[in-house]
Amino acid sequence: MSVVAADLLALDRAAQDLLFRAARTANTFTNEPVTDAQVAAIHDLVRYGPTALNGQPLRVLLLRSAQARARLLPHVAGGNRAKTQSAPLTAVLAADIDFHERLPELFPHRPQAKDWLTDRNQRAAQARFNAALQIGYLIVGVRAAGLAAGPMAGFDAAAVGQEFFPDGRHEVLLLLNIGRPGPDAWRDRLPRLPTDQVVWAL
Amino acid sequence: MSVVAADLLALDRAAQDLLFRAARTANTFTNEPVTDAQVAAIHDLVRYGPTALNGQPLRVLLLRSAQARARLLPHVAGGNRAKTQSAPLTAVLAADIDFHERLPELFPHRPQAKDWLTDRNQRAAQARFNAALQIGYLIVGVRAAGLAAGPMAGFDAAAVGQEFFPDGRHEVLLLLNIGRPGPDAWRDRLPRLPTDQVVWAL
Repeated sequence: MSVVAADLLALDRAAQDLLFRAARTANTFTNEPVTDAQVAAIHDLVRYGPTALNGQPLRVLLLRSAQARARLLPHVAGGNRAKTQSAPLTAVLAADIDFHERLPELFPHRPQAKDWLTDRNQRAAQARFNAALQIGYLIVGVRAAGLAAGPMAGFDAAAVGQEFFPDGRHEVLLLLNIGRPGPDAWRDRLPRLPTDQVVWAL
Repeated sequence: MSVVAADLLALDRAAQDLLFRAARTANTFTNEPVTDAQVAAIHDLVRYGPTALNGQPLRVLLLRSAQARARLLPHVAGGNRAKTQSAPLTAVLAADIDFHERLPELFPHRPQAKDWLTDRNQRAAQARFNAALQIGYLIVGVRAAGLAAGPMAGFDAAAVGQEFFPDGRHEVLLLLNIGRPGPDAWRDRLPRLPTDQVVWAL
């Protein structure tokens, strides 16, 4: 990374560091609580990120109580259990497959948009994809709050879905620990692919 | 949005506005070019965003030439065609389904990780999900460069894949126009779901 490239951005260096360059996936956390007000401030920022048809399918279930956390832990991969137990806050991130029901309100200039999504499989794919975009914004938002995010894919998503979303209309996508980084919160940064190997032009 | 909530974030207000609150999906663009140096600066920032197993499946094909753009247009929905034709830069965003081949280099402390992903369907789902996270980071990064992003889902993804990624190992996910917003670049902001309707606690 050259000095020149960072300076081509409008976002200042401190913010670049906060959100991307110095930010890291945390594996340990301090006991400092993450408040509802902090979560609301994060959500109020990232909810402006774009989604297809403005559908906003992401739903966030915060596991605050010890009882709720205990219901999650059996479904989490062994290597993720200790950090999930010790994080001040763990969020279950899910897509609402029936997000289209709210399109008449969210996409009011095309009231028929809801009817474009009657096929459940197609709708589920769209919900999954757009919720994932929103998870990208959310991870940035957690960092914008000065907190560390710890996304985890190592868990039984179907079992967590049955446990916390028995209605069957939500699909669990990711777990996210949130808090201040604790001791030895991360290893060395893993390598990132260089631009010329992933960005091409025609 | 109260003053208090925004002030709970570590990210300053100007950066909040640049990335989320004032940023909008642009539907028209000026002629000002988006340079390779700008794209490289954006990518150099957002490549630090986290992905599962550090797999980084997102691939970005920039359509710079008129010939390349002409190959795309027949596959784009009518309502998206004019803006795609006039944008200074259009990117085709795809997931590399065989991203796992690089895991020995990208996730070196678990050299066996590549072998966890021999099932193509499972790998495609993982590639799609993590590339979508990366698209979330990329949209934030385009805005960090002071540019407007115009994500578009209205196109024939299979046809665009056959046209630009005939190898069959890439799945096209989204188109992204990039540039400076032109005249009447957007309508009024569409409504966002309030926090208490999408974030719950247990």
